Amino acid sequence: MKDIISISDFSKKEFTDVLAEADKMHSALQKGKALDTLKGKIMAVMFFEASTRTRLSFESAMNRLGGSVLGFAEPASTSMAKAETIADTVNTVAQYSDVIVMRSPFPGAAQLASEVSSVPIINGGDGSREHPTQTMLDLFTIKKEKGRLDNLKVAMIGDLKYGRTVHSLCKAFNNYFKGIEFTFIAPEALAIPNEFKKGKYHETGKLELEDADVVYMTRIQKERFADPTEYEKLKSVYKITPKILETMKKDAIVMHPLPRVNEIDWRCDSDSRCIYFKQAYYGVPTRMALIQLALRGGK
Amino acid sequence: MKDIISISDFSKKEFTDVLAEADKMHSALQKGKALDTLKGKIMAVMFFEASTRTRLSFESAMNRLGGSVLGFAEPASTSMAKAETIADTVNTVAQYSDVIVMRSPFPGAAQLASEVSSVPIINGGDGSREHPTQTMLDLFTIKKEKGRLDNLKVAMIGDLKYGRTVHSLCKAFNNYFKGIEFTFIAPEALAIPNEFKKGKYHETGKLELEDADVVYMTRIQKERFADPTEYEKLKSVYKITPKILETMKKDAIVMHPLPRVNEIDWRCDSDSRCIYFKQAYYGVPTRMALIQLALRGGK
Amino acid sequence: MKDIISISDFSKKEFTDVLAEADKMHSALQKGKALDTLKGKIMAVMFFEASTRTRLSFESAMNRLGGSVLGFAEPASTSMAKAETIADTVNTVAQYSDVIVMRSPFPGAAQLASEVSSVPIINGGDGSREHPTQTMLDLFTIKKEKGRLDNLKVAMIGDLKYGRTVHSLCKAFNNYFKGIEFTFIAPEALAIPNEFKKGKYHETGKLELEDADVVYMTRIQKERFADPTEYEKLKSVYKITPKILETMKKDAIVMHPLPRVNEIDWRCDSDSRCIYFKQAYYGVPTRMALIQLALRGGK
Repeated sequence: MKDIISISDFSKKEFTDVLAEADKMHSALQKGKALDTLKGKIMAVMFFEASTRTRLSFESAMNRLGGSVLGFAEPASTSMAKAETIADTVNTVAQYSDVIVMRSPFPGAAQLASEVSSVPIINGGDGSREHPTQTMLDLFTIKKEKGRLDNLKVAMIGDLKYGRTVHSLCKAFNNYFKGIEFTFIAPEALAIPNEFKKGKYHETGKLELEDADVVYMTRIQKERFADPTEYEKLKSVYKITPKILETMKKDAIVMHPLPRVNEIDWRCDSDSRCIYFKQAYYGVPTRMALIQLALRGGK
Repeated sequence: MKDIISISDFSKKEFTDVLAEADKMHSALQKGKALDTLKGKIMAVMFFEASTRTRLSFESAMNRLGGSVLGFAEPASTSMAKAETIADTVNTVAQYSDVIVMRSPFPGAAQLASEVSSVPIINGGDGSREHPTQTMLDLFTIKKEKGRLDNLKVAMIGDLKYGRTVHSLCKAFNNYFKGIEFTFIAPEALAIPNEFKKGKYHETGKLELEDADVVYMTRIQKERFADPTEYEKLKSVYKITPKILETMKKDAIVMHPLPRVNEIDWRCDSDSRCIYFKQAYYGVPTRMALIQLALRGGK
Repeated sequence: MKDIISISDFSKKEFTDVLAEADKMHSALQKGKALDTLKGKIMAVMFFEASTRTRLSFESAMNRLGGSVLGFAEPASTSMAKAETIADTVNTVAQYSDVIVMRSPFPGAAQLASEVSSVPIINGGDGSREHPTQTMLDLFTIKKEKGRLDNLKVAMIGDLKYGRTVHSLCKAFNNYFKGIEFTFIAPEALAIPNEFKKGKYHETGKLELEDADVVYMTRIQKERFADPTEYEKLKSVYKITPKILETMKKDAIVMHPLPRVNEIDWRCDSDSRCIYFKQAYYGVPTRMALIQLALRGGK
C-alpha cells in the first residue's frame, strides 16, 4: 500500500497491522521515548481547507517520529492554488517531500492527487466523502479502551444522515469485525442511510444508552434544519448530561470526533467514561502508524 | 512549578535558578553548540493574537533545544477557536504536545488554560495583564549587561500608566531585588499607578537621564490621547536622540521591548549602550530556560 | 561570501563550487540519506509576499540538511511589518536565526536587509529585480540534464521583456559560459531588452524550436496587454503542444519556472523531455548548497 485514500482500501490484515503498529507507537509515547524512525524525512501538509485539529495531530505524529513538516494550513496561506491546477500543485509539492497529507473540501480530491503524485498521499479528509485516519483512530480508541473490536454494542447518535465519521466507522465495523450490534439514535430527518444498515441494528429517536458499550456522539448542525425551532427542540434531546451518564453501563465509553458544541455537557468531562480527549490523543499513535505505512509502501 | 502564568508565581530561588539556567543556555548558544536536550519533545504555540516577535523567539528557543514546534500563529489561521470553547481547544492541543505557549488578548486566558490543560502552559502574554517571559528576559538582559540586579538606578520612560512590561518589571524589582532607585518619566496623563511606587523613586515629566544605569524606553501610543496635538507635542519630548545619549553615563544601557516607532532615533543604534536588539536575542536563552523549567515540572 | 543577493555577486569559481556542491546534495538525496550538516541551525523565512513554491523549496532544503525553520509566509501573518521599519524587523529576526531567506515585492529589499542584518541574507526574490536561487537551480537543471553549460542552443519563450527569470538566466550565461546561442521568441510588445542581446542570438516571433537544446518557457500575463483580444491571439501562438514537441530534437529539454497556466499543454507532461517538475526538485539540492554557502561565509 502506498496511498491512504479510503477506509475501504485496507485489507483485514492491513487493518490489524495498523492497529498493532499504533499500539507500539502508543507504548513508545507513554515511555516518553524520542523516536528517530523518520529522521530526515519530510511530510507536507496541503490543507486546502482549514482543519487545525487534524493538521496538528498529523504534525505531532510526524514530529514524534523524528521527521520534519512543511506546507500550508489553509487556502489563503498558499499562493499556489490560485495560480495553477491542483494537479500541478501536488506534483510540485511532491518534489519537496516524502509524503503528503491532503485536506480538501472537494470529494475525490485525494484520489486525484494520488494519481499524479510521485510520493504517497494520505487523505486528511475530502469533503463529505472520506476521512480514513479518523476512522482508524476511532477503532484504535475502542480497541484500547474496550480491549476488543468484536462483540460490541455501539450506539451512534446525532446527525447520522450526513456524518462522515459515522458512515466510515459503520463501514469498517461491517467489513472487518463481527458481533457488532448498532443502535442508531437520530431524529427522523437525520436518520442513517439504508446502505449502512447491516447485521444487527436497531433504530430509535430516543437517547437509550443503557446497553451500549460504545457511545459515539456527533454534532447536529443547525444548518440542516429549515425550521430553527425544530433544531432548538432536538438540541436538548440529543444531549449527554450527568443524568444520562447515570443510566449507562459502568464500563461504557463516550466518544466524540470533536469539536463539540453543547451535545455533551462539560460537567461530564470528569467522568472516566468520557474519553473524547483521550480519543484525540490516540490519533497521534494511529497517524504515526499510518505515516510509516505510507512511507514504507514507497511509490 | 509547572505553569508559567505570572511573574509573581516565581519564588526568589526560582528566579535565581532561571537566570542561572538562561546564562548556561547563552554560553551554549555563543559556542554554536547544537543541543539535544528536548529532542522528541513538542511545543505547541497557540496564538489567539498575532505576535510574531514573541512567537519566533519561543520557536527559536525550542528549536535551539532540539525540540519541535507546531500550532497556529493567529486566530484567523485556526479553525478550532471558531468551533469550540477555549477550554476544549487547549485540552485538545495538550494531547498533541508536551508544553503549550499561549498568547491571548484576554486577561486571564493563560490562567484558565492552565486549569484545564494536561501539559504545562507558558503565558506568552494575556492582554493587559501579564507577559512573564518578557520580564524575565528584561532582567536577564540587565544582569548580563550591568553584571547585577541590585543597586541600580532605573529610568522608566513613556506610557507608564498602561505599559504591561513596565509594571511587571517594577513588580519583579520590588519583590526580588534591593537598592533599586526608579525614575518614572512620563506625561501626567500616563503617570505610573500608585501601586508601583515602592522603595526609592522619583517622578518627573522631563527626560533626565544623567544618573540612570538602565534606561527602559517604551512607546507612547497615539490612541491614548483625545487630542492629537497633545500626542504630537509629547512624541518629540520623549525621544532618545544622539544628543540625549551624550548626557548619559558611559556605562548606561538603553532597553526597549520593541517594536519602536520613533521614540529612539535610529542614529542611536550604533551606540554600544543601545542594546535593544541584543535584548531581543537574550529572549532566546531566557525562554530556553523557561521551557525547560516548565517541562521539568511536568504536570 | 555571506549574503546571496544577486546572481552577479558570484565569481566564476563560486558558481562552479555551488553547482558541484548541489550535485553532492543531489546524490545524498537520491540515496535517501538523512543529513545532519546543519543540525541545531535555524533558517528564518521572511516572506513579505506569498510565494509558496519558493518557500517550501527552501524549507525542504533546510530540513534535508537537518536544520530547523521558523518565520512567516506572507505579510498578513506577521504583526511585525505593520509596527516597525523593515530594518528593525530584519534586525530582530536575525537575533532568532542563523540565516534569513527574504522575499519581498520591493526591488532592493534584500540588499537593504543585508546591510542591517547580523546573519546572512538569501534573496528569495525581490520584486522585478532578482531571484538568484531560481537562476542557480535553472543552471543546475541544465547541467544535470544536458551534461554541460557551454555550447548550447537556448530558446527563451514568452514574456522576455519583464521576465525576471529570463533576464537573470541570460546574464548568467553571458557572464560565465561560452558558445551559447540564444533564440528569443516573443511578441513584439514583449521583446527582450537590448542589454541582454549579447554574443550569438536570433530574434523571432515564431515558435521555432527545431534546433534548441534547451527550451525555456515562460508565461505571458494578460495584464501586459491593453487589448485583451491581442492577448487571446498570442496565448495560442506561444503554446507548447504534443505537435510542437514532435518538431523538437530528441534530446532537447523543456523547462518552466512554474506556475504554468496553459502555455504548456498538460498532455506534454508524460514526454521525457518535459522536465519542469524535475526542475522544481533540482531546486532543493541547489538551495541546500546555497544555504550551506551562506552559513559557511558567516558574517
